Amino acid sequence: MTIENLSSNKSFGGWHKQYQHESKSLNCNMQFAIYLPPQATQSTPVPVIYWLSGLTCTDENFMQKAGAQRIAAELGIAIVAPDTSPRGDDVANDDSYDLGQGAGFYINATQNPWGKHYQMYDYINDELPKLIKETFPVTDKWAISGHSMGGHGALMMALRNPQKYSSVSAFSPIVNPVNCPWGEKAFTAYLGDDKADWREYDSTELLRKSSVEIPTLIDQGLSDNFLAEQLKPQNFVTLATDKAFPLTYREHEGYDHSYYFISSFIEDHLKFHKENLK
Amino acid sequence: MTIENLSSNKSFGGWHKQYQHESKSLNCNMQFAIYLPPQATQSTPVPVIYWLSGLTCTDENFMQKAGAQRIAAELGIAIVAPDTSPRGDDVANDDSYDLGQGAGFYINATQNPWGKHYQMYDYINDELPKLIKETFPVTDKWAISGHSMGGHGALMMALRNPQKYSSVSAFSPIVNPVNCPWGEKAFTAYLGDDKADWREYDSTELLRKSSVEIPTLIDQGLSDNFLAEQLKPQNFVTLATDKAFPLTYREHEGYDHSYYFISSFIEDHLKFHKENLK
Repeated sequence: MTIENLSSNKSFGGWHKQYQHESKSLNCNMQFAIYLPPQATQSTPVPVIYWLSGLTCTDENFMQKAGAQRIAAELGIAIVAPDTSPRGDDVANDDSYDLGQGAGFYINATQNPWGKHYQMYDYINDELPKLIKETFPVTDKWAISGHSMGGHGALMMALRNPQKYSSVSAFSPIVNPVNCPWGEKAFTAYLGDDKADWREYDSTELLRKSSVEIPTLIDQGLSDNFLAEQLKPQNFVTLATDKAFPLTYREHEGYDHSYYFISSFIEDHLKFHKENLK
Repeated sequence: MTIENLSSNKSFGGWHKQYQHESKSLNCNMQFAIYLPPQATQSTPVPVIYWLSGLTCTDENFMQKAGAQRIAAELGIAIVAPDTSPRGDDVANDDSYDLGQGAGFYINATQNPWGKHYQMYDYINDELPKLIKETFPVTDKWAISGHSMGGHGALMMALRNPQKYSSVSAFSPIVNPVNCPWGEKAFTAYLGDDKADWREYDSTELLRKSSVEIPTLIDQGLSDNFLAEQLKPQNFVTLATDKAFPLTYREHEGYDHSYYFISSFIEDHLKFHKENLK
């Protein structure tokens, strides 16, 4: 597997690096970014947090705006930020921001024209972690986190693969995509009309039928424009409370859906994961 | 003077806000951003750091990428980030990234077609601070900082107006624009061929003839692609050493010209200014 280094920036004593590689699951070239803290050497591998971004994002948004490197350097944790969909001129797309490129929803599409490339679940769950493990000095300990569509991705991945992740966290996640406009539109396009297929990628539905326990932190801003129509955190929180699922859910007065919110609380998330990565 | 609020994002308990106003010095509408820490109230005004950005930037780059809000909130300092030039369809421009819109160089242009709008020195030095003082709960204590072209702007403003600024700092500044390609190109266009006019906006030339003492911090990455040809910090550092000017100059192995460098050391700059703002 060839992997090409596109850029390197020293940051808080460690390195932010962007790479391109040919993805087998996605049938296209993919870009991702990794932050390697100063502690990461061949003889001292470090644990990894996977960060899944929201609609329209690439590998760059989190790395440039979240301010996570300072804390990752302090704690000795690597962070991997993948892209949010397959990319390229021959990859199916849509004019709207919430479908197609930049809007992969971290699922395996079954419908035309999406199925050929939109296999983000396999990419995030299998292919990318193998590549990361082969290429960088990282341990087998993982956490996963994300924002909005990426918060959906992180919760869903963790609930489906509790053996892989020691903890999961999310900012402003789409917790119940089968019950909101963003999710209904994307799942109809990518998965077709059978809602039984949708529920396999819905965190609230997965939690409903699960006995899994994985430490979970969710932060939600109360001035988030998408809160009532798209995010609906209470659908997940109510169920988690009923099941005594280990969820910490925090609401933040005045905060919106932006990276100004994420950067204000990312330190808590990294410290939460560090505790559980021990 | 009318001023319009364009956006507000809660950040580290304070607020990031963008505004638009009609600038008299620049003869166009201008946008700026301010971070107001949680301590800033009508009864408890806070000191201000003015941040001047580099080529191609707007008010957004620093606010989104530097990670300064965390420290500003801790220290109780407001930060103002202006745009880097006049803007608009009827404002003279150039196809290159280092002249025209996004490249105002913080000087008052005297040459056609630039003179009508490119009066950034007056805007930053007079008009904007008056507007800030009238509009927000800030004290009369100011510091100034900047990056690259904005590092030039910060040092030059402070050396010309030592009574206004309690301290100045810069990342990767163009310290001697009369002796580098970026400065020669811009100063020729904006100021004409008489180099006596150029020297009034050149920090190294200003320091040469000055007896001013203003606490100064400069950080420079040693893997900065622009170091040898454009930035030439030693021209300033050597002179400062000779004159016992209160400069702290730090070189950083491996760091480049990007915001990954700035974010790694912005905490030191804000703490440096806080000490001198007392």
